[in-house]
Amino acid sequence: MKDTATIKKMIEELKGLKTKDMYLNDFFHTWKESDDEIAATFAVAEILRSMREQNISSKVFDSGLGISIFRDNSTRTRFSFASACNMLGLEVQDLDEKTSQIAHGETVRETANMVSFMADVIGIRDDMYIGKGHTYMKEVAEAVQEGYEDGVLEQRPTLVNLQCDIDHPTQSMADMLHVINHFGGVENLKGKKVAMTWAYSPSYGKPLSVPQGIIGLFTRFGMDVVLAHPEGYNVMAEVEEVAKDNAAKSGGSYKRVNSMAEAFKDADIVYPKSWAPFAVMEERTQMVSDGKFDELKDLEKRCLLNNAKFKDWECTEELMATTKAGKALYMHCLPADITGVSCKEGEVEASVFERYRIPLYKEASFKPYIIAAMIFLAKFSDPAAKLAELVEADTKRIK
Amino acid sequence: MKDTATIKKMIEELKGLKTKDMYLNDFFHTWKESDDEIAATFAVAEILRSMREQNISSKVFDSGLGISIFRDNSTRTRFSFASACNMLGLEVQDLDEKTSQIAHGETVRETANMVSFMADVIGIRDDMYIGKGHTYMKEVAEAVQEGYEDGVLEQRPTLVNLQCDIDHPTQSMADMLHVINHFGGVENLKGKKVAMTWAYSPSYGKPLSVPQGIIGLFTRFGMDVVLAHPEGYNVMAEVEEVAKDNAAKSGGSYKRVNSMAEAFKDADIVYPKSWAPFAVMEERTQMVSDGKFDELKDLEKRCLLNNAKFKDWECTEELMATTKAGKALYMHCLPADITGVSCKEGEVEASVFERYRIPLYKEASFKPYIIAAMIFLAKFSDPAAKLAELVEADTKRIK
Amino acid sequence: MKDTATIKKMIEELKGLKTKDMYLNDFFHTWKESDDEIAATFAVAEILRSMREQNISSKVFDSGLGISIFRDNSTRTRFSFASACNMLGLEVQDLDEKTSQIAHGETVRETANMVSFMADVIGIRDDMYIGKGHTYMKEVAEAVQEGYEDGVLEQRPTLVNLQCDIDHPTQSMADMLHVINHFGGVENLKGKKVAMTWAYSPSYGKPLSVPQGIIGLFTRFGMDVVLAHPEGYNVMAEVEEVAKDNAAKSGGSYKRVNSMAEAFKDADIVYPKSWAPFAVMEERTQMVSDGKFDELKDLEKRCLLNNAKFKDWECTEELMATTKAGKALYMHCLPADITGVSCKEGEVEASVFERYRIPLYKEASFKPYIIAAMIFLAKFSDPAAKLAELVEADTKRIK
Repeated sequence: MKDTATIKKMIEELKGLKTKDMYLNDFFHTWKESDDEIAATFAVAEILRSMREQNISSKVFDSGLGISIFRDNSTRTRFSFASACNMLGLEVQDLDEKTSQIAHGETVRETANMVSFMADVIGIRDDMYIGKGHTYMKEVAEAVQEGYEDGVLEQRPTLVNLQCDIDHPTQSMADMLHVINHFGGVENLKGKKVAMTWAYSPSYGKPLSVPQGIIGLFTRFGMDVVLAHPEGYNVMAEVEEVAKDNAAKSGGSYKRVNSMAEAFKDADIVYPKSWAPFAVMEERTQMVSDGKFDELKDLEKRCLLNNAKFKDWECTEELMATTKAGKALYMHCLPADITGVSCKEGEVEASVFERYRIPLYKEASFKPYIIAAMIFLAKFSDPAAKLAELVEADTKRIK
Repeated sequence: MKDTATIKKMIEELKGLKTKDMYLNDFFHTWKESDDEIAATFAVAEILRSMREQNISSKVFDSGLGISIFRDNSTRTRFSFASACNMLGLEVQDLDEKTSQIAHGETVRETANMVSFMADVIGIRDDMYIGKGHTYMKEVAEAVQEGYEDGVLEQRPTLVNLQCDIDHPTQSMADMLHVINHFGGVENLKGKKVAMTWAYSPSYGKPLSVPQGIIGLFTRFGMDVVLAHPEGYNVMAEVEEVAKDNAAKSGGSYKRVNSMAEAFKDADIVYPKSWAPFAVMEERTQMVSDGKFDELKDLEKRCLLNNAKFKDWECTEELMATTKAGKALYMHCLPADITGVSCKEGEVEASVFERYRIPLYKEASFKPYIIAAMIFLAKFSDPAAKLAELVEADTKRIK
Repeated sequence: MKDTATIKKMIEELKGLKTKDMYLNDFFHTWKESDDEIAATFAVAEILRSMREQNISSKVFDSGLGISIFRDNSTRTRFSFASACNMLGLEVQDLDEKTSQIAHGETVRETANMVSFMADVIGIRDDMYIGKGHTYMKEVAEAVQEGYEDGVLEQRPTLVNLQCDIDHPTQSMADMLHVINHFGGVENLKGKKVAMTWAYSPSYGKPLSVPQGIIGLFTRFGMDVVLAHPEGYNVMAEVEEVAKDNAAKSGGSYKRVNSMAEAFKDADIVYPKSWAPFAVMEERTQMVSDGKFDELKDLEKRCLLNNAKFKDWECTEELMATTKAGKALYMHCLPADITGVSCKEGEVEASVFERYRIPLYKEASFKPYIIAAMIFLAKFSDPAAKLAELVEADTKRIK
């Protein structure tokens, strides 16, 4: 637990980072943010967490709403968003939209404005359909920008991407903050080997945004990032380009292999997780658009059959033993498909999962702070000054 | 945006209005409120909006609940109510009741008390069944009054009508505030012509409370209000009586015609919108009460067939050109059935809607402030003094 | 209504009670709490209620979440929990879980942590399955304790039992506070006769936790508690043991009879209410576990047939006339099955219910304060000092 002096020092360091482009802006993809902006997000998240540990209130809104739009079910992300909003003083209001409805044009524009009269932030999760989620978020962001400029809205709500078809920034940022803490600082990450690998799961159609988010972010820290998956389970090519560029700039590397064993060999970090091939996700989106629901069922059946060929893509004790000193940090966005626990055959052996259970919970525990940091940086032009003010005021969260 | 000096001036003007009968009272129908009370509601709404623009907190409740009871789905009204509550410091709790259940007697009385232990306001939307919505609201209001008198409740929650079978006061008041702003003041409304007209929609059974709310309120401002609809699409006779009385007192006029063209001719304001005939709504309510669901389907079919005879009741560019200088203010409560956008044939031509899109959003944006004003006036015996206190304290909404 | 001087005196009296074991602890069953702890819960509830009557804010949390987990529908308990949280400054977030899912092990542990990052309290209602509800609550409590110790959670949320298969402490405590107020003080309860009796209802499978809660708590106050039910409608034997022990210690008595008339004879308090036999609840739980849904339907049918033999177990005017001076206090947890009102034949005659309607509402009105008191005592090591501080500060709830 960090004392107040340490918190003040962290705030001092934050002052050196350029964050003015985050002010009144949205958070879509980590690779649209500068290194300073990424660092500032981590810094604010850590400061907010330390403040809470010290019972210092971080309530910067006296009133205001955080709107959540979830286009599929989600307990974890929903609670993370609610927690972040609550910590800052915003009340959450959920907008329920049928997942089958992919709204366009006037409906999106109108709804975005109608729910935003008192909204300071809008969090959206829309990860199911390739080519749709990010597009929808952009439409909402443009609609509220227009509404603000036209005097419909008194404030311009910030949009936070809680998972789209392309990136899952609140997840990858929470994951990375966990890594930074685990390895004792961002300066210790250079040269570390990361294995982001596919793993078998008895379900189908898991989104691509987690692996994409990881390779799109982790490559910025000079690490050697390996993406491993069975042939055909490719992620979006444009995100791989991002990963390659990042690696080149950061002095790390990025490569793709078709072997789990190769990826795990001497890895410092392993992230084995199921996803659906990009090509399948595209096909699926087209079928949904066309209302071809019988063909959708066939697609699912075919996919599950194909997945079943790769049941040996499991994070076993044996594989873990091949990692750096047999002690790689095992990561997962949760919930995991645990062999013999949540399913017959899954992504990870039960004993591996159990050994990393507490670290996994800690990994997840950074998410509310990451979301709060994104909101904070979008709402205050001088975030360090505002945080210093809060620490100075020292209002107690529990009186 | 109004500066603090202007806000203070608005508060001064509010002092001249007699609002003491609104204190600890409910808001059911605009025509039950005096001219001063209507004027005060507009004034408080404008002041609250100006305060928010200036980042001055209007949080008058340190804690407390706003209960929403929605007997059919509603995104817009739900968010407006949540926004109003949040702005004043109340947390919203939704009471979900099955729409098919029309509760009576003990159930209503009991539920009203059970959800009100910490409730400062109850907002109800119950617009589907003629003769039921308003009756239900009265029952709830009486139950909590009794509960308060008997010492069950520490406070007597105020009831706000968020739409009943008779009136839709938060809508008509928001609409009128939009009109006042558009024409530069209430003093400029005398003699303006208003066309509240039916319009074709591919759906059936839209509530009557919007046209009824409009003719029941707009006739108070010395305007010439014309209600136009195809033969048989009458609204409730008792509300037409209200409109006639209002017109007589305000020096305006009220008439009913069966021609959209006649209503639009030289109109300053047009409000074309679909609704179901009163007689059909009565029949429908009876069938629901009797559980005659097959006959309900027949009724729907007959209605849709009948509606289809009046597809030419559409707000077209051609019709708009016949209004005052071709520039009448087009109004709608949203969402509109837009021809070629949200349906094949609808209430309004796409180009007309698009030209008025921003004004329509602004019209809607007054609703949270109107609701907040209704609550505020029911909760403070000297609203002007309380508002002055808030402006003086100048607590920042965003710190 | 108590004035501030009286409130201060109540706070003084609270100081004499030993509550330190409640600090950072959970509330599962009343019989796990000492007499001082029970008395302190009543005292804090009364103080919080008096403060609210005086418009003194009891908001001790500047932010924070109250998580509600309801494994079946509940309007009343949901609103009581929301009210309690709101009064203290916590925002409620509902976790929706399918009632059919009885989660185990990793799922419970993980979910408990994932929803608790900002949670100060978790309220759980899980009363449907014998042997499951309490077990589930213990699992959640252990999971968040572990999460707190491992540094996953910054705070350890308190668990409040909002009804399990064994006890319903927020109900029985609210009921008892009503009794204390009715008889003018806890010192007047010795020797009073309480009839907790089964009553006929056209529904089946009502939980046992209400009668169990009543006999488990009311026997602590030197009263003569009689449990009456038709043969076979036994409650859990372990709770009867609790009742016997309590009675022995408090100088009261506990007995079980199979006659409603015998129980009502000269009773000071009657609590006639339907429940399902323990043996049936056990059978039912097993069938649900085994997925035997056809057999479940048969069981329901058999139970309803058996219930129908005891339609004369109704709280009639005739029976009421046999109670002490014909004026026993009639109690119910609501909603009651009222003959001729909510059903054809039910638990209570309409005229009896109507005569006690207001007292019944008052009985219910204590629940939010009892829940708030449980949270308060778990969160502050010196509750009297904290309450004194709040009264001193005198922050107005409605400004």
